[in-house]
Amino acid sequence: MKDKALQRLTHLHREHKGLINIMPLQTGGLLTEAAKEALIEFGDGYSVCDFCLGRLSDIAKPPAKEFVHDLLPQFLGSDVATVVHGAREAIFTVIHSLAQPGDTIVVDSNRHYTTVVAAERVGLNIVEVPHSGYPEFKVDVDRYEDLIQQYDPRLLLLTYPDGSYGNLPDAQRTGEIAQAHGVPYILNGAYAVGRMPVKMDEIGADFIVGSGHKSMASAGPCGVLGMKKKWEERVLRTSKSYKNKEIELLGCTVRGVPLATLMASFPDVIERVCHWGEQVAKAQWFSAEMEKLGFKQLGEKPHLHDLLYFETLQLYEISQHVRERGYFFYKELKNRGIWGPQPGLTKAFKVSTFAADRQQLTSVLDSCKAILRKYS
Amino acid sequence: MKDKALQRLTHLHREHKGLINIMPLQTGGLLTEAAKEALIEFGDGYSVCDFCLGRLSDIAKPPAKEFVHDLLPQFLGSDVATVVHGAREAIFTVIHSLAQPGDTIVVDSNRHYTTVVAAERVGLNIVEVPHSGYPEFKVDVDRYEDLIQQYDPRLLLLTYPDGSYGNLPDAQRTGEIAQAHGVPYILNGAYAVGRMPVKMDEIGADFIVGSGHKSMASAGPCGVLGMKKKWEERVLRTSKSYKNKEIELLGCTVRGVPLATLMASFPDVIERVCHWGEQVAKAQWFSAEMEKLGFKQLGEKPHLHDLLYFETLQLYEISQHVRERGYFFYKELKNRGIWGPQPGLTKAFKVSTFAADRQQLTSVLDSCKAILRKYS
Repeated sequence: MKDKALQRLTHLHREHKGLINIMPLQTGGLLTEAAKEALIEFGDGYSVCDFCLGRLSDIAKPPAKEFVHDLLPQFLGSDVATVVHGAREAIFTVIHSLAQPGDTIVVDSNRHYTTVVAAERVGLNIVEVPHSGYPEFKVDVDRYEDLIQQYDPRLLLLTYPDGSYGNLPDAQRTGEIAQAHGVPYILNGAYAVGRMPVKMDEIGADFIVGSGHKSMASAGPCGVLGMKKKWEERVLRTSKSYKNKEIELLGCTVRGVPLATLMASFPDVIERVCHWGEQVAKAQWFSAEMEKLGFKQLGEKPHLHDLLYFETLQLYEISQHVRERGYFFYKELKNRGIWGPQPGLTKAFKVSTFAADRQQLTSVLDSCKAILRKYS
Repeated sequence: MKDKALQRLTHLHREHKGLINIMPLQTGGLLTEAAKEALIEFGDGYSVCDFCLGRLSDIAKPPAKEFVHDLLPQFLGSDVATVVHGAREAIFTVIHSLAQPGDTIVVDSNRHYTTVVAAERVGLNIVEVPHSGYPEFKVDVDRYEDLIQQYDPRLLLLTYPDGSYGNLPDAQRTGEIAQAHGVPYILNGAYAVGRMPVKMDEIGADFIVGSGHKSMASAGPCGVLGMKKKWEERVLRTSKSYKNKEIELLGCTVRGVPLATLMASFPDVIERVCHWGEQVAKAQWFSAEMEKLGFKQLGEKPHLHDLLYFETLQLYEISQHVRERGYFFYKELKNRGIWGPQPGLTKAFKVSTFAADRQQLTSVLDSCKAILRKYS
């Protein structure tokens, strides 16, 4: 095998370590100090399984059992919970259990691409509740009602918030509609659970899905799935041959270090959810300051989440005249100690204000100002 | 939420850290020094995705692209490879792609429980090639031929070696049978790939499955899947709506730190496979020494793998007369700095000699001797 290729593997480094992080996929997944300890402690292969008696969610040391069966359902507002590889795997698990090939499900049009792919993997048809289009891209959840009557779906799914605009559609109203029509309802809270207060029972959903690496200060990949008691027998059904092995989980899912970090971060995650109001205020302030620079925030206004989408045509204009083309903005930010917008994008991009404090965000704003000035 | 329960999460510690490790699930998953660095470097959530352009296996920094598309297929002897959450998920992915509910697959009777559960998840019937029973539990792979003629299966699966006895059935002969009958053949190498030389093309398999946390010095969970070119279109088929997203992988699988450790350990893993002969000699020596103590090694003899199963009736006898019952042996070993046999077991247990050197294994043998003497 090529020596050089192998050599490249021996010292893997991140270029973005230590920078101000406004990258939307990453701001909710930065490890807490406790999680960093757990990462090292449980880094070796199957370390979390030292005291396994046959089921990951029943391990007493580290206290996975208490975490999965007691703490997590309380946190999610669900009757039952389990841990999974991530939000997409949770969604696949639920729809694979509840729907048959050829069935239809109704989802919001701001859904993550993995919702579509998970449905394809099961062989389902997808019908989408439309959004309002530019500039707010809002989903009117009352439209679920028409589509239920038209398509007789096996499931509804709502993305709360969506990963593009950070819009928060009316999840509770969706719950009322789902219940009125007796259609099971999945809330995809990959960017909600672990960032903001959200309880499955208060929303009236049947399932709630969260992401450890996206929003619960955990190493990737891992996620959580909460559900009503009545679905446990179906979604967490066990093998005919192995009575303690859940078929949809293939026995055990996140059998490694991400689970240790998820658990270690959990006390801090519970705490940070209580400060969500401050996060929203910070996001709104940042959005307003970006607009003062001439950028335009798309998605809901006033904005209620740290995920923000900006249209930045001035940057695109600059990119047309510089050697690095679209990459100039990424490089300029990186030189100023900032990591966030996807390299290459200048017309529009997403950021998240979740992990940066106001001082750091001021530095982002000053940097944008300086970059605009430099090329004007 | 209960303060005490939350407090238990803030300092997660492993009781078995630093002990001589002969625990069969763990000896192949101990991180290399390079992997320990990568663990810390890529611990935060979605760190490996800094430079993602839409597909995990195409990321250039860290060099996932080169690893997945170039190094891994060479190592596996496959045309194509990908990374997955683990061996069980790889098996599910393949059978979900190739078989329909109601179809039959033929597997060896020493298969891991997850093979059965994965088949149940797809809705398949399983037919098993029997083993020879006590004491060797050998699988005569020629029996695949009869079962193919009888059941017209969609797939064959062989576990190489099995996780109980560490038996190595004739994988190459199975390949000949599979090819002669045109039945796709999965080699489950969860305890082979990364420990011993094994190449899919030399064996004549269609698919090869490996486990990062079990045998490739990687954090858990993660795994690898190699296949012949002709299956790529089917197993790695992409979404109709998202042309670069593989349906069976739900877009991306191991999108986090386990992938970083898998890559960082890879050069050492390639190297250690070259020393497999020494591992086998060490296992055979250890087995012979254990038998001198009156224990009986089950499974193939002479043994060709570091996974060893011992029948230890003297220990069981002792357990009937001591306060800790079956746990006495675990405690006695732990007090002597050794971690391996599952807590509670004394009649028979599995160990692995892969990670311990001869000096450490001598300490295990001396400890067994001392424990037998203490209670005699």
